[in-house]
Amino acid sequence: MRRVTVTASRTYDILIGRGLINDAGKWIAQAVKPCQAALITDDIVDGLYGGTVERSLKENGFGVHKFVFPNGEQSKTWQVLGEMLEFMAGEQLTRGDIVVALGGGVTGDMAGFAAAVYARGIRFVQIPTTLLAAVDSSVGGKTAVDLKAAKNMAGAFCQPSQVLIDCDVLEKLPDELVGDGAAEIIKYGVLADRDLFETMRRGRLMENLEDIVEKCVTIKRDVVAEDEFDNGARQCLNLGHTLGHAVEKNSNFTLTHGKGVSVGMMLIARAAWKKGYSEENLVPAIEEAVRAYGLPTKTDYSPEELARVALVDKKRRGGEITLVVPKRIGKCDLIKVPVGELAGWAAQED
Amino acid sequence: MRRVTVTASRTYDILIGRGLINDAGKWIAQAVKPCQAALITDDIVDGLYGGTVERSLKENGFGVHKFVFPNGEQSKTWQVLGEMLEFMAGEQLTRGDIVVALGGGVTGDMAGFAAAVYARGIRFVQIPTTLLAAVDSSVGGKTAVDLKAAKNMAGAFCQPSQVLIDCDVLEKLPDELVGDGAAEIIKYGVLADRDLFETMRRGRLMENLEDIVEKCVTIKRDVVAEDEFDNGARQCLNLGHTLGHAVEKNSNFTLTHGKGVSVGMMLIARAAWKKGYSEENLVPAIEEAVRAYGLPTKTDYSPEELARVALVDKKRRGGEITLVVPKRIGKCDLIKVPVGELAGWAAQED
Repeated sequence: MRRVTVTASRTYDILIGRGLINDAGKWIAQAVKPCQAALITDDIVDGLYGGTVERSLKENGFGVHKFVFPNGEQSKTWQVLGEMLEFMAGEQLTRGDIVVALGGGVTGDMAGFAAAVYARGIRFVQIPTTLLAAVDSSVGGKTAVDLKAAKNMAGAFCQPSQVLIDCDVLEKLPDELVGDGAAEIIKYGVLADRDLFETMRRGRLMENLEDIVEKCVTIKRDVVAEDEFDNGARQCLNLGHTLGHAVEKNSNFTLTHGKGVSVGMMLIARAAWKKGYSEENLVPAIEEAVRAYGLPTKTDYSPEELARVALVDKKRRGGEITLVVPKRIGKCDLIKVPVGELAGWAAQED
Repeated sequence: MRRVTVTASRTYDILIGRGLINDAGKWIAQAVKPCQAALITDDIVDGLYGGTVERSLKENGFGVHKFVFPNGEQSKTWQVLGEMLEFMAGEQLTRGDIVVALGGGVTGDMAGFAAAVYARGIRFVQIPTTLLAAVDSSVGGKTAVDLKAAKNMAGAFCQPSQVLIDCDVLEKLPDELVGDGAAEIIKYGVLADRDLFETMRRGRLMENLEDIVEKCVTIKRDVVAEDEFDNGARQCLNLGHTLGHAVEKNSNFTLTHGKGVSVGMMLIARAAWKKGYSEENLVPAIEEAVRAYGLPTKTDYSPEELARVALVDKKRRGGEITLVVPKRIGKCDLIKVPVGELAGWAAQED
């Protein structure tokens, strides 16, 4: 088992290993004294692992109050979050109790937000069951729900008390969910680690799963440590995300986050090369990497459509938007762009 | 004009004076660079002061986006908060923008919560228009909405960037709203300041309004400074509130917060004397003080009813509840009581 310790406003461990989910209650009891646990999960993950986690929690002295919501981004709403909080209040959870988030990014985002605001903040533990959630939302403390006008627009910073990543669970994921995580892992490679990028480009994710997860959370930890509340350095993690979110949103979320990020990275790499920001043309290398995981490289949306949607993004401050621009594999820059020029960064044609 | 500087996770000034609301935009511009402002208020306060504040904000370079909701505690819901956030997103407010809360406690609690979670946190300025909001919610950073099972059960800690208290506004309040604030001011006296208590007992609130407001926010500031996130010392501010909230809730909020606190203080003072915790019988003194502002001293609810409702309170940890018990005027103790004994603290009969 690997252990990555994250020091933020709360210090916690990310445990990465095999079969962890079977002993979830035992591991959680190392971080949190047994108490009442709101076990938050979606209907699909509940069918796969809900019983295992509930049993293990109970065996280790926790009371379990399970809240199940329908799988999918369309559940990530203010209303479902309200139902979750009403459930917790109805079960009379108190400040000393915990939330256990069992599932992918939607579950982690919502359960973390619920923990952040229930009784003005209780502790939570994350058990990410998707690769994307494991490498992305297990570090950083960002939680949120979507508003109608913008994704992730209501949320809170809330650090977990522990994260359990079971690679046996990640290995069983369907291809589309592997692709979702792969896009984010490729992003970490482009940002900060040429070896990681090359491993991904050669399609060697599954043979190196524990190594790769450990590497990704360590990279993210080190970036977030400099900027817990997302005011500066942390913006580099948005590589491929500004336009990627716009692609997702334009598709009305029929395209997954990973596919959006994949297209977003391609667009920004192409523009960076054309505008002379990168030292070499990174488009072919990134294209090879994302294709190894069945990820798309293009979108049908026009640059103007993408720019319009991206400009509602919460990262915008006044008349400028910050873009993360790759210089070479392993090195990116932040640059500020007037909002009127954003469409020029979203062109696919040569 | 008086200025009380509060140092919490954010340092800000509370300005206390006359006519401040007419120049609200000028004062706010001293704390926040002109930007887009979501002006949050209820329909009654909007009719009285909405135009004044909007004009002053615009004159000082702020863009104004006004959101008005129906006056009253019944608006303090997850749903109305969601509508507020959707409004802000629809108006494309960004992280550099602000929320201006113009109104009483409900407005401050909701607008502060909206600011805490919109884009994971933007700044906010409070213009309390009730005496209760001025002396209570202007310090401490507690924001919340009610859930069905419990009052203030979803919320966040969020410090304002500035608080403007206009005593001309407070002077015009109807008696019931004066009473609401008076109960809280009497609480500060019982907790920490015999002079303040005596002034209130003699019915001299309005002659000493600026002094009293300054004294109250200073007392609260000093208590909160020791315990920003409400884990210890700050609990003394709940004097009269554990049972007071239960009275309010049992009445389905037809009784105001001040009336609940008034009854709550009477109940706890009576039990403290009967159980030998206080050095003298404080019931007659507190009774005189609350009666000077038309506040009730009794409730028709049984001790068992009050205890049952109080035990859903978020301050409960496991099998105990912390009560604030007056020892003498100016000095209270925190004591832990097994939940089964709470009803014994809510008896009115001798």
